[in-house]
Amino acid sequence: MPLPRRPILLNAFDMNTPSHLTHGLWRHPRDRATDYKRLPYWLDLARTLERGLFDGLFLADVTGVYDVWGGSPEAALRHGIQVPINDPAVLVSAMASVTRHLGFGITATIAAEAPHAFARRMSTLDHLSEGRIGWNIVTGFLDSSARAQGAAAATGHDRRYDLADEFMTLVYRLWEESWDDDAVIADRARGIYADPARVRAIRHAGEGWRLDAVHPCEPSPQRTPLLFQAGASARGTAFAARHAEVVFVPNQGLAATAAVVRKLRAALAEAGRDADAVRFVTTLLVVTGPTETEAHARYEEYRRYAQPEAGLVQFSSAIGHDLSRHGLDDAIGGGSADAIQSSVASLKRPGGAQLTPRALLAQMPLGARHAPVVGTPAQIADTIEAWVTGAGIDGFNLVRTVSPEGLEHFVDLVVPELQRRGLHKRAYAQGSWREKIFGPGRARLPSSHTGVRRRTSASP
Amino acid sequence: MPLPRRPILLNAFDMNTPSHLTHGLWRHPRDRATDYKRLPYWLDLARTLERGLFDGLFLADVTGVYDVWGGSPEAALRHGIQVPINDPAVLVSAMASVTRHLGFGITATIAAEAPHAFARRMSTLDHLSEGRIGWNIVTGFLDSSARAQGAAAATGHDRRYDLADEFMTLVYRLWEESWDDDAVIADRARGIYADPARVRAIRHAGEGWRLDAVHPCEPSPQRTPLLFQAGASARGTAFAARHAEVVFVPNQGLAATAAVVRKLRAALAEAGRDADAVRFVTTLLVVTGPTETEAHARYEEYRRYAQPEAGLVQFSSAIGHDLSRHGLDDAIGGGSADAIQSSVASLKRPGGAQLTPRALLAQMPLGARHAPVVGTPAQIADTIEAWVTGAGIDGFNLVRTVSPEGLEHFVDLVVPELQRRGLHKRAYAQGSWREKIFGPGRARLPSSHTGVRRRTSASP
Repeated sequence: MPLPRRPILLNAFDMNTPSHLTHGLWRHPRDRATDYKRLPYWLDLARTLERGLFDGLFLADVTGVYDVWGGSPEAALRHGIQVPINDPAVLVSAMASVTRHLGFGITATIAAEAPHAFARRMSTLDHLSEGRIGWNIVTGFLDSSARAQGAAAATGHDRRYDLADEFMTLVYRLWEESWDDDAVIADRARGIYADPARVRAIRHAGEGWRLDAVHPCEPSPQRTPLLFQAGASARGTAFAARHAEVVFVPNQGLAATAAVVRKLRAALAEAGRDADAVRFVTTLLVVTGPTETEAHARYEEYRRYAQPEAGLVQFSSAIGHDLSRHGLDDAIGGGSADAIQSSVASLKRPGGAQLTPRALLAQMPLGARHAPVVGTPAQIADTIEAWVTGAGIDGFNLVRTVSPEGLEHFVDLVVPELQRRGLHKRAYAQGSWREKIFGPGRARLPSSHTGVRRRTSASP
Repeated sequence: MPLPRRPILLNAFDMNTPSHLTHGLWRHPRDRATDYKRLPYWLDLARTLERGLFDGLFLADVTGVYDVWGGSPEAALRHGIQVPINDPAVLVSAMASVTRHLGFGITATIAAEAPHAFARRMSTLDHLSEGRIGWNIVTGFLDSSARAQGAAAATGHDRRYDLADEFMTLVYRLWEESWDDDAVIADRARGIYADPARVRAIRHAGEGWRLDAVHPCEPSPQRTPLLFQAGASARGTAFAARHAEVVFVPNQGLAATAAVVRKLRAALAEAGRDADAVRFVTTLLVVTGPTETEAHARYEEYRRYAQPEAGLVQFSSAIGHDLSRHGLDDAIGGGSADAIQSSVASLKRPGGAQLTPRALLAQMPLGARHAPVVGTPAQIADTIEAWVTGAGIDGFNLVRTVSPEGLEHFVDLVVPELQRRGLHKRAYAQGSWREKIFGPGRARLPSSHTGVRRRTSASP
């Protein structure tokens, strides 16, 4: 297949916590992730990513603890499995101040947000970053998160997507409909800041939320932040097809992932969206070095610090099923219908047999359930090229390994190789994050997007 | 009276909006406040404040619009009266990254916050700023804010303080009790990040909130942010006496303010708190220049841009009473018992007569209801000295005038004069914001504070 007509998207995939996915690597002597609490760690990371012309820094988040394993958060605390976890949104302005082009993808959980305050926070960040904010839409599946919000348990899977649709409608109206583009006049002579006739209150009375308010912020460069989503179930796919501009596709190997991308493209067409309106991004776990020997030596060295058993603890919450009660070789009976459906589905092997905890551990050599891609820059570039040409993938979220050296190696070694092959850009495009991805003049949601149709149905 | 034994506290009083209190001054040709949406504006401001050895940047906030005037937000939008208003919390990390000592006081409205997410946001900022975060506790009095949260109207005055007490109890427990000081081990060899025996879930079932969760963050330098509060009613004073470490006292002139400070000190003693446990800060609206002539010329120039009529619009919301329906010379009948009680009380003149709108306008020559202090650096310093020695005031929030030049003039002209008199420090003290104010070793709330007693009553 030919090389793609456009450069790939490259994001760092990280989290404001000592251990994101590659559990145990925080123990590596060169790892600095325990500095996650301090600004220099993040400022250095942002500068490194912009040096490598990365599109974005993608910040995962979770609003509860992983307490399915053994029925308590003990194992999560001991291994530092996404706990402690600091707020990702308040990190961003510092990193935006030392970069000009890098995007910031912020995960926010609908079940834990109030729409008015959330819409304001995102608009403010979109202003401060001059249009470089994205939102990873998460509905919230953890009972521990629900208990942190005062509920007894998380809302059931499909129901929480229904509520998420309502929340989306509401924040779209705040972002897209409350202030006209020409509402702010800032006329010093006449003393008029905004024209009240071009600003309107949004009134909403739904099943999940009520609101009657003017959006607090004037229109930001993108209005609605660039929308990321990772729905994989039937209901989640329908949600992604309706809302997402960038879809995260779990990396299940090239062939299986290619099938998921095809399914998602079909869902998009069915939802009436243009084939070019969405990008597909998967995760890659890369360990590289100048030579094959050095790359594999580095991988073996990393492995010595990894804690796959911590990966099992996180996976127990992902499938809503306590694996601490399983023998290593007992087939896992199945996950909860209310948990992460891509994780639950991944328990089934071809032929219908269920995975065992031992098999899962073998799938987590670096503590994350993710097959590492180990090799020279040329070998990494080969893999990336294969994903692009063979699976219709547009971009990659690079999983944190030993931090920050893992990303520094990628920027110093792999980026130049990708550029030589025409896979990675040689300079940033101008404009907001959405324009960088979809082209000039596309700072805002396209008029065909469900969030924008509402702009014309404004309240009088 | 002798000079104080300790230097004054100096904060800039500002807001993430084009017009904070001195309405109309955004129209001044040199005013840059319409750049409030952009990071350089705030980074420059933070650097200027640290150059002047300011203690903090105090960011006001409001979660609704001022729509009492004429029953609509039209006038507020037209004059830009605290609308648009961006989120203050997400500004902070950028400013923290270009300063080392400046504190950041963030206003957050209890009625608009979920305790778990709020506690995490503040802990994260306290980590990132290395202990430089304060919280101005606001209960939320605007019906427009309540409607933005899905309620029909704001909770009544005393009831919202009762709820605020509950919220405080809950966030204290998250900040002070969930993680022991030695919970984080980060033992790379043994692979133990935190000792689960030293971390506990907080369980709360009250009238306003339910929660069952581990605090998401490891202990930050201050744990509980430095607590600011401005309660003025009987119930508000009791709340301040219980919680506040720095109390904002409305500037009602030196004698009246001195009486308020005395009343608050008595309330503190009654609440069993040490006289030295609390600082009192009032607002000052300063216009200065190298000579008296230049200072007054500058004041007259500023006045030409001010819009006192916009001040009336804001004041209508502060007292919960629509002044658009009043003749200029009609006595104002009185404010709402659920609005800002210091504003309502200020309507009464000595002798019992009520103010008129015309009298209010005369009190707002620069658009804010605040008597400006205009003069040479020596004259400004005389005024500050009089407040310190005559009213028991420990510090000042300087109201934004023409921005940023108003603060630049203060830093360049008044700060050296204050330093010469021993009123202002010549170097920052080390440590967190709380230590800078209360002394070395005082990074955390003192053990006598209501928020800390709970640390010993931990869940098993």
